[in-house]
Amino acid sequence: MQAESVLCNSRMVTAKVWALKKHFDGFPKASDFELKTIELPSLKDGQLLLESVFLSVDPYMRPYSQRDMKEGDIMIGSQVARIVESKNPAFTVGAFVVAKGGWRTHFISDGKELLLLPSDWPESLPKSVALGTVGMPGLTAYFGLLEVCKMKPGETVLVNAAAGAVGSVAGQIAKIGGCKVVGCAGSDDKVAYLKSLGFDEAFNYKTVASLDEALRKASPDGYDCFFDNVGGEFSSVAIHQMKTFGRIVVCGAISQYNNTVPQKGAFVQFPMIFKQLRMEGFLVSSWYNRREEALKALLKWVVEGKLKFHEHVTEGFENMPMAFIGLFKGENLGKAVVKV
Amino acid sequence: MQAESVLCNSRMVTAKVWALKKHFDGFPKASDFELKTIELPSLKDGQLLLESVFLSVDPYMRPYSQRDMKEGDIMIGSQVARIVESKNPAFTVGAFVVAKGGWRTHFISDGKELLLLPSDWPESLPKSVALGTVGMPGLTAYFGLLEVCKMKPGETVLVNAAAGAVGSVAGQIAKIGGCKVVGCAGSDDKVAYLKSLGFDEAFNYKTVASLDEALRKASPDGYDCFFDNVGGEFSSVAIHQMKTFGRIVVCGAISQYNNTVPQKGAFVQFPMIFKQLRMEGFLVSSWYNRREEALKALLKWVVEGKLKFHEHVTEGFENMPMAFIGLFKGENLGKAVVKV
Repeated sequence: MQAESVLCNSRMVTAKVWALKKHFDGFPKASDFELKTIELPSLKDGQLLLESVFLSVDPYMRPYSQRDMKEGDIMIGSQVARIVESKNPAFTVGAFVVAKGGWRTHFISDGKELLLLPSDWPESLPKSVALGTVGMPGLTAYFGLLEVCKMKPGETVLVNAAAGAVGSVAGQIAKIGGCKVVGCAGSDDKVAYLKSLGFDEAFNYKTVASLDEALRKASPDGYDCFFDNVGGEFSSVAIHQMKTFGRIVVCGAISQYNNTVPQKGAFVQFPMIFKQLRMEGFLVSSWYNRREEALKALLKWVVEGKLKFHEHVTEGFENMPMAFIGLFKGENLGKAVVKV
Repeated sequence: MQAESVLCNSRMVTAKVWALKKHFDGFPKASDFELKTIELPSLKDGQLLLESVFLSVDPYMRPYSQRDMKEGDIMIGSQVARIVESKNPAFTVGAFVVAKGGWRTHFISDGKELLLLPSDWPESLPKSVALGTVGMPGLTAYFGLLEVCKMKPGETVLVNAAAGAVGSVAGQIAKIGGCKVVGCAGSDDKVAYLKSLGFDEAFNYKTVASLDEALRKASPDGYDCFFDNVGGEFSSVAIHQMKTFGRIVVCGAISQYNNTVPQKGAFVQFPMIFKQLRMEGFLVSSWYNRREEALKALLKWVVEGKLKFHEHVTEGFENMPMAFIGLFKGENLGKAVVKV
């Protein structure tokens, strides 16, 4: 698509899209997806045509597909997209937006759910970061830690899946906020990355002899805040290491997303009562009334070099399923994105 | 003991006490306790001698014995006691106090942990109520529902073990606060009692075909607040019936107190996240800086007839173990107390 299509909208646009062919049964596999092409209609007044530049793959898509999608639906998700045609005066051709367009190379929008990239977005900063550290995962870390956990300076914060898109931001925000941070990840490379980010302690949860002992060694006094991206057995062990009045923000449960039958773990009531813990589950979208403030803070920290990021970039729209599947194999360091 | 012992403190006082003979293994049994007699020494300046009138048996004693006691220790607990001798100018002989004296007929105190019964305590109100509805269990219901759950008028509140000392107060406070209240209990008599207290819905969780269906039928829209006294499987089912942004106060876990090995249930992370729930465990003692305000409110409601109470009174200090054991058999309707 070229910009001149604003003047000539009779040209047909063909979008490639990824549909959910078959509901996932356990781990997602390539054959659960289907690549299709769709002819997009001409724009009506108020509409605009967008072209995906970077697409996001995120763990949440796994449980949401189960809850909210039927077979044949196009996969849900966000992207950084360029406006290639506009019949909406609020949007200029050539501008970049963050959209919830699903897994599509091109799509039509009425502009309502689009978020323009900040005008002060630095030239040197990849626009894909608007899908990660200065996007939904960054906001998740920001609100989860500062508002749900109500982290305070001097506290000790535990983050699991700490080398992931959310965890890596959560850990760094905890450091910026004057906390001691302990991070867990699933490979030695990731652990080295966490140390390079300034985590005070980090370990590979897959290779420690005892998670309980590793957590105790990393913080003998226990933890005030626990930013939980993993759930399952990790959480069952960690809850016993919380300090009195500790707070657990339940952000994700990636260890449980691919179970075909619900798993069981020790009941939580005893530690909840005797340590007087607060546990809170949250969806970042509930905080989007304060999105602007948070994006501003995240972008500022990134520009100042206080908040580092790493991206795991997969090239090619046709590789979206593999990029997504890779999330559950722990392939990504930092944010997983697909470059069209 | 007579009042004249203030003048003549050379008389020996013999206290009967119940000691933990053997740590409980599963359900507490009579042979785990030992009745002893202790000769109390003469009072020193600042001390006072108390005689238990009513003693409290509470489910919390089961987990606390495991955590905090060793074999041979005297059982922990509270009582309403009469001051029979005083060398402490702050306390007058004949006054009644709530004390944490443990399972003893007589004991010596320095006065520090004693709480005088309010001066406006009605003559017609049994003093044992200071161990129940206008005491620790009432305070638990009050702070748990109003401060931890932050119950709001018009909400739907679920209470289990609802005919117990805490649950019966929690349900009534919810009604006073303008909520719809659903209560669960373990016998048809208890269910009838709940209805007489004004619970909107009540059912016998032991006889319903499906707890899930019974909860759904009682409130098809789900629950805003869940006052959990039971834990275990009940909680695992109920958590799925919470509304978005629901709050669960974890007050007790009586279903789990007598397990010899920790039990397992479905992981909580999925409902916590997708319903954005808050779960908070609490100990009422953390709210004792506001005890006076709450006791005043509870007493007022009792006097006004808005807060009804029922007591399950066991006669005789020698029957304390059986009264305690009865808690775990569901024998008590309302507050279980022992009259010396």
